[in-house]
Order: sequence, then structure tokens, then C-alpha cells
Amino acid sequence: MVSETVQDGLKAIDELLHEVVTSNVTILDEASHHIISSGGKRVRPQLVLLSYLAAGGQELEEVVPLAAAVELIHTATLVHDDINDHSLMRRGKITVHARWGRTFALLAGDYLFAKVYEMLAPYGALYNQIIAQATVELVEGETLQAAAAKAGQMDRETYKRIIDLKTASLFRAAATTGGFLAGADDDMVNALDTYSRNLGQVFQIVDDVLDIIGDPEKLGKPVGADVVQGMGVSGVALAGRRVAPEPDVDPVQQMMGRLRESGAAELALAEASELAERARAALHDLPASPARDGLEALIDLVLQRDR
Amino acid sequence: MVSETVQDGLKAIDELLHEVVTSNVTILDEASHHIISSGGKRVRPQLVLLSYLAAGGQELEEVVPLAAAVELIHTATLVHDDINDHSLMRRGKITVHARWGRTFALLAGDYLFAKVYEMLAPYGALYNQIIAQATVELVEGETLQAAAAKAGQMDRETYKRIIDLKTASLFRAAATTGGFLAGADDDMVNALDTYSRNLGQVFQIVDDVLDIIGDPEKLGKPVGADVVQGMGVSGVALAGRRVAPEPDVDPVQQMMGRLRESGAAELALAEASELAERARAALHDLPASPARDGLEALIDLVLQRDR
Repeated sequence: MVSETVQDGLKAIDELLHEVVTSNVTILDEASHHIISSGGKRVRPQLVLLSYLAAGGQELEEVVPLAAAVELIHTATLVHDDINDHSLMRRGKITVHARWGRTFALLAGDYLFAKVYEMLAPYGALYNQIIAQATVELVEGETLQAAAAKAGQMDRETYKRIIDLKTASLFRAAATTGGFLAGADDDMVNALDTYSRNLGQVFQIVDDVLDIIGDPEKLGKPVGADVVQGMGVSGVALAGRRVAPEPDVDPVQQMMGRLRESGAAELALAEASELAERARAALHDLPASPARDGLEALIDLVLQRDR
Repeated sequence: MVSETVQDGLKAIDELLHEVVTSNVTILDEASHHIISSGGKRVRPQLVLLSYLAAGGQELEEVVPLAAAVELIHTATLVHDDINDHSLMRRGKITVHARWGRTFALLAGDYLFAKVYEMLAPYGALYNQIIAQATVELVEGETLQAAAAKAGQMDRETYKRIIDLKTASLFRAAATTGGFLAGADDDMVNALDTYSRNLGQVFQIVDDVLDIIGDPEKLGKPVGADVVQGMGVSGVALAGRRVAPEPDVDPVQQMMGRLRESGAAELALAEASELAERARAALHDLPASPARDGLEALIDLVLQRDR
């Protein structure tokens, strides 16, 4: 029942995304549709929809632009991330950066960010404030990550701060604005906030683990990218034990091998499971409903995904 | 009188800009303060302030965050432009790109864009809609410009479309939102719109002319940057007459020489003077006031500037 509603919502979000990014400027039009069409898991818009429904929201149409805007923030950051990471593949397709070049990828990302606020404008001050603040934190998290990787100073505490800012902040904004729009009371909003923060952390840890032990075919992109840059779980695991590579062996492959042997991935997944239980516990403060079940199913989806 | 009010306003805007970009993330904090401190002409915030006052606005405090947000959009695009143009100097200071590198310049620009919407959130739907739309057009204009320069297909019509999108759109948003905030009626808003559109076109034409005949010392950046990229007035003037450079002569210097001889700059300035008269004429539809005189003085400032 909710599942069907969520499917309808996601379809409407996809249609809206394609509609709003349409431009007379060919490159922006093509690059935007390219990245939107490449799919993705749509976890953030699902989070907006389900939080809205779980808090008693009834009118799917009123939440669709909000959910689309949240997904578009994520999409814009991917386009810019791929410039900074020199990534060629994303979701099984060529990146905007690789296809159109750096200049146009930078502009396409800026274009998508501007479209976010065009979509958000009608929601008023509270929603714009929450989402803008989350975007600020997201960029702060990515900057911290790039700075830590550059300095070779990734540690556990920095890693946790980074994933809280760069991933959990937008998850929280998604869930709480969805709740507010449904008229949720403070207890409900707090429950959604705790749930989504933990869910966001789980999501990012699993993402980083998949960079080490994932299947490139399923992921639609090469693995080991974070290892090269000393980021993510690999950055934490490798911190303080940079050793000279053996001659005649690809140093990335070698580091990947060491990481797999180190048990870093298993440790990280154990931590993710704990955070997932916290997310699950927070849901008890919401009234039972098919949408609350949907939020719970989302935890397992995020924890057990292989792409 | 107005001049003093405008000076007070600009001071408050500068203080607010420094306040809002403050971050715990050192690089974002330093890069943001660096670019904001580098001055700039503050034409856009003056436009917001004067439009607000000319339309009868009385409370400077209510317009300051709006004017600061408009200036911050401009600032964010400068940071990203300097990446794409490989610029090393801006306003007599090293660019964010040159000082902190591409990755952090890209993130700093994104950070400033997000801060724009944090500041704009309290103004509500109309203002957010107008400013977001102007930002979309600004990015569309820059994309068109990069595409035309890359294709070597800059012509008069394309040039006019580009300056309308990349420069005039934000000038219009600045003036009309300033007017709306003061409760301007439709006639006043239309007058401000016509005035600011023409002013924006003048501003960009003069900017492009200064790239050819300006003094690098006064500009605080090298000239000829647009010539290298086949952009701006130089792009129009050079269109269809690319000739092989003479051996042993710096090809940029050679093109600059040809441009100066071609009279392209004088032609462009003549066109700018015509547009300036249209801007001046539009002001007749506003009630006489010191602020209206200020808007008129802004035309001469933009037209006669040498930096």
C-alpha cells in the first residue's frame, strides 16, 4: 500500500526532475538529463516521502517538489565530486565531467544547485533554512574530507565528523522537512531526526566499505577510488600505516589487498549494524503505520545493499 | 544624504557577509573571507539598496541581507569562473583557485552558493524565486559563453544573449527585489527592471572593453584573458577573422594589437552609451528622490569606470 504510494511518488519526482532541468542551453539540458537518467538509489527522496507519510501526510503532490529538490542537491554534489575525484564512471554511465569536460561539469553542477532553490522557493522560510543549512554542512563535510585526505590525517574521530556532515546532514533535512510538511509534532520530528541521522551514517559507512569489497559491475563504477585518495573507511584503516609499496605490484591493488586482509571492512560493517539498530529504535516513537514499516525496510536496504 | 545611507548600508552588508561565511572548517572560512575582503565594486548591493530607497523603502536593516545575498551570488560565480579561466589574479589579489587549488575553490564556491540561500530563506517565496531564477540564467549565460568560445562561433546576437543572461539577469533581480521589498507598484518595478537590465548590459560591455584597453594595474588582473578565450567583445570583433599569427610575436599581444586597431572597443563603448541612455530614461518613471539620483549616478560610474 505505502510501497505503491512511494512508487507513485518516486515516478512523479523523476518526471518533475526532468521537467525542471530543461534548458534552452543545450549542454546544460543534456548534461542534466544525463545525470538524472542514470538512476541512482533515490534513497533521499524515499526518505522525504516516507517521513511525510509516517507523520500523517496525505497529499503526495505537496511533498513531491521537496523530495525532488533534496535529490537534486545530492545530484549536483555528485557532478562536482566527479570533477574533484577525476571519476570517469558513475552508476554504470560516463560522468558529466568525462563526457562534457570540467568547465561544463562545474557549470552543470551550479545549474542544478540553482534549480534546487527554484523548486524550494514556494515552501517558505523554514524549509529553505533547513535545506540550505544541510547543503552548507554537506560542503563542509566534503571539504574536511579533502583536507584530511590531503594531509594524510584521517582518523576515527575526523571520519565520524565527516560522514555526519557530508551525508547525515542531508538525510536529516530530508526526514525532518518531510515530517514538518505533514504537521508532525516535536516528538515525531525528533524521532525522524535521530532515525535519519543514524541511517545517513550507515549509508556512508556501507558506501565506503563497498569501495573496498564491492563488485565494480554491480556498483557501476570502479572500486578503490577512496583508497587512492586516502578517504573513507580505507583512510581510517590505513591511517598511520603507509608503507612503501613492493616493486612491480600495482600500489592500489596492494593497498586494497591489505585493507581486505586487515578486517577494516568487517569492523566498519559491525559499527554500521549498531547504528542501524539505533535508527530502528528511534522509529518506536512514531505511530505504527505502513510508512513506518517502509522507513524500517529502508534501514535494511541501506545496510544490505551491494551497489 | 542617500549617499551616506548607502555607505552605511554597504558597511552593514560587508559585516554581514563576513559573519555569515564564518565556518569551523578552516579552508572554507579562510577562502571565503579572502574573496570577500578583496573588495570589488559592490555595484549589485548598491543597486539593491538604491532601488529599495528609490521605491520608498525606509528600513535599511530589512534590505541588507537581500543585498548581501545578491553580492554573494556574484562572489560565488567569480570563484568558480576563476577555476574555469585558470585565473591567478582577481581584484589585485591571488584567486582562491591559485591559492587553495581547484578542489577547494570548487567547494568554496558551492559553500558560498549555499550561504546565499541561508540568507534568503526568511524573505519568502517571491524573493527566493526571483533570485534563484536569476542564478539559473547567470549559469546559462556562462555556459553559452563557454560553448560559443569553444566552438569559435561568437557573433553579435550570441554576445547580446550572453550578457543578458550572465550579467543583466542578476542586475534585474537585484533592482526588482529591492523594489518589491519597499512595496513598489507595478510601474515602479517595471521602471527598475528596464533600468537595471540596460545597466547590466552596459556593465558587461565595459568589462569586456577593459579586457582589451584597460590598465592591468588599475584592474588588479591581467588584460587579454577574454581575447585568449575568444570571448567578450573581443570574441565578437575577432569572429570570422582568425589569421595565422606572425612568427616570433606573442599571439595574444598580436591579437590585442589588432583589436585595438580594429576600433572594436570604441564601437562597443558607443553601444554602451546608447544603453546607458535607455537606463537613464527608465528612471523618469520613478518619483524624484536622492535615491533616484543615486541610481542615475550609478550609470555614469559603470560607464566611465577604468577598473
